[in-house]
Amino acid sequence: MNVNFTPGPSQLFYTVADHARVAFKENIPSISHRSKKFESIFQKATDGLKELLGVPNDYAIFFTSSATEIWEKSIQNLVENSSVHFVNGAFSNRYFEIATQLGKKALKIEAALGQDFSSIAIENYPTELIALTQNETSTGVSITNAFIQEIRTKNPEALIAVDAVSSLPYPAIDYEKVDTVFFSVQKGFGLPAGLGVWMVNPKCIAKAENLLCKGISIGSYHNIPTLLLNAKKNQTTETPNVLGIYLLSCVVEDFLRIGIKKIRQETDYKAAILYQALSTHALLKPFVTNPTAQSKTVIVADCGEHTARLSSFLAEHGLQAGDGYGALKKTQLRFANFPAHSKEQFELLVDLIGQFA
Amino acid sequence: MNVNFTPGPSQLFYTVADHARVAFKENIPSISHRSKKFESIFQKATDGLKELLGVPNDYAIFFTSSATEIWEKSIQNLVENSSVHFVNGAFSNRYFEIATQLGKKALKIEAALGQDFSSIAIENYPTELIALTQNETSTGVSITNAFIQEIRTKNPEALIAVDAVSSLPYPAIDYEKVDTVFFSVQKGFGLPAGLGVWMVNPKCIAKAENLLCKGISIGSYHNIPTLLLNAKKNQTTETPNVLGIYLLSCVVEDFLRIGIKKIRQETDYKAAILYQALSTHALLKPFVTNPTAQSKTVIVADCGEHTARLSSFLAEHGLQAGDGYGALKKTQLRFANFPAHSKEQFELLVDLIGQFA
Repeated sequence: MNVNFTPGPSQLFYTVADHARVAFKENIPSISHRSKKFESIFQKATDGLKELLGVPNDYAIFFTSSATEIWEKSIQNLVENSSVHFVNGAFSNRYFEIATQLGKKALKIEAALGQDFSSIAIENYPTELIALTQNETSTGVSITNAFIQEIRTKNPEALIAVDAVSSLPYPAIDYEKVDTVFFSVQKGFGLPAGLGVWMVNPKCIAKAENLLCKGISIGSYHNIPTLLLNAKKNQTTETPNVLGIYLLSCVVEDFLRIGIKKIRQETDYKAAILYQALSTHALLKPFVTNPTAQSKTVIVADCGEHTARLSSFLAEHGLQAGDGYGALKKTQLRFANFPAHSKEQFELLVDLIGQFA
Repeated sequence: MNVNFTPGPSQLFYTVADHARVAFKENIPSISHRSKKFESIFQKATDGLKELLGVPNDYAIFFTSSATEIWEKSIQNLVENSSVHFVNGAFSNRYFEIATQLGKKALKIEAALGQDFSSIAIENYPTELIALTQNETSTGVSITNAFIQEIRTKNPEALIAVDAVSSLPYPAIDYEKVDTVFFSVQKGFGLPAGLGVWMVNPKCIAKAENLLCKGISIGSYHNIPTLLLNAKKNQTTETPNVLGIYLLSCVVEDFLRIGIKKIRQETDYKAAILYQALSTHALLKPFVTNPTAQSKTVIVADCGEHTARLSSFLAEHGLQAGDGYGALKKTQLRFANFPAHSKEQFELLVDLIGQFA
């Protein structure tokens, strides 16, 4: 067995290599992105995503090259002056930094690493966009639907952007309460990297069009009006990662066959047994202690001085743990819990952690 | 036989499906983009490209998601106020349009479709960047090194950007005379789409840093200073199209084994027999009539009322011609002449054109 538990690029979903083989056999990487064949692949991917995730029909779905690109494009297209960022780790902080780099007045609301924002009193923020990170990949902290609901209630006007990079398809996001959600395919969808998925509602489209009318630069080929114009034809502006979109369409179909309910149940089960193993271990503990903030899809273990030894021990048994992020590299390990990681693999992981002394 | 002559996405180079099979076997799509393994792939690709194309050592090579992205990023990073664009078709015009969309004062110097710029007197242009399209994919017109040399002589200060999307690796560009060159991999390199290659010299780096110092927004994760910081470590800012970069590194190695001289000779041979067949045909003719302007890598046939019939005739024999571009769709066909297209395939194409009456 050889299992990659790093939170992205992670383990490929087990069907992907076969889908890729079929793609090359059928010359998918060679088809024109203006062909009917490509349009049908685009539509299968976007219709399938809407069905799988429960995305309302009035959302548009765009393809970019990465979620990093969506950080940039969402700020350019949705913010004239100011954005507010809930930051509790490296990735939510990068979204904030990009807003600053693009010349916006970006405000940071910070929680300590490993904490959610439950100790912070939510206000009405005088801003155009509130950026939330549904799952902070660096620390394994999730926010709840109740938290998003509270932000919405206190901020009926601002756009709410949700970075769900390392959690979808798991979380049942209430898309009616937010305005844009995005992810990248090399995490929860178990696909090769090189594709970001950007979902926007009509309020986002109107905002981008409004900025454009005001003469504000919202970028060029990947601004929302241009993305939308092409997406309506099931096309892209540029020659895209056709193979990546094809593979996504196939894996979404696989996930629909399995059913989102089963995917969520299995994710819950795998998370429960790993958190249990960490909580009851003599040498290890979960980094995130508040149960409602514990991510189900990126589980971070505080391993202290035992970090390198545990990582080696797991590697001897074919299990590759993810390093802790940044400064926490020497004292933490991260475990992705994506649909690509089977129950049996998690049971083995938990067994080995139980043996580790 | 089934050969795709559309100029991109085009025929895959014959080794690509095997390289992809190896990639999945070795879990390349699952490796971390911060790993030593990824760094070695990045370096193999960039070192190999420098050797293959004769790119000076002081150039930096960056990966983007498409050449379309490079149009945007090159304007953002290299132009504060104004750029000059030599336009003779749809793609050179889109580069111009992107500069306009980004709020720059962009000047267009136009030639008619199918013409190069030999009738235009080159001047010293009061601009920061001169944008040249080495090979206009929509019409099959190339510019010569002598033309580029003349622009450089009359414009010693301005940056010169060369869009070589649908010609590299064929043209022997004099990289000392220009400042930035870019292409995308789904054309001459016969690879799946989803990767752009951007080569910049130190003058470009200095210009971007200068704009940044002046407080001008040059974008975020893919601005030149950030790209450079990561490229120096053989890394990328974001999680990139790892599989695409891996496949590029493999095909560059294949091309080095074949040798650039042989690739250029075969391209010349294939172009010569196709232009000959078109020039001597009773019903067809080359769209570009000036021999020095005739592209060797995208050959456009003026087929008039016979267009649809010729396209069907070739398709019956397994050869897929590219449609004419835009308004010329009904009266032209385009034939890509890339390393993926063999001499035997071109000989068959020419035979069939000879039989077409």
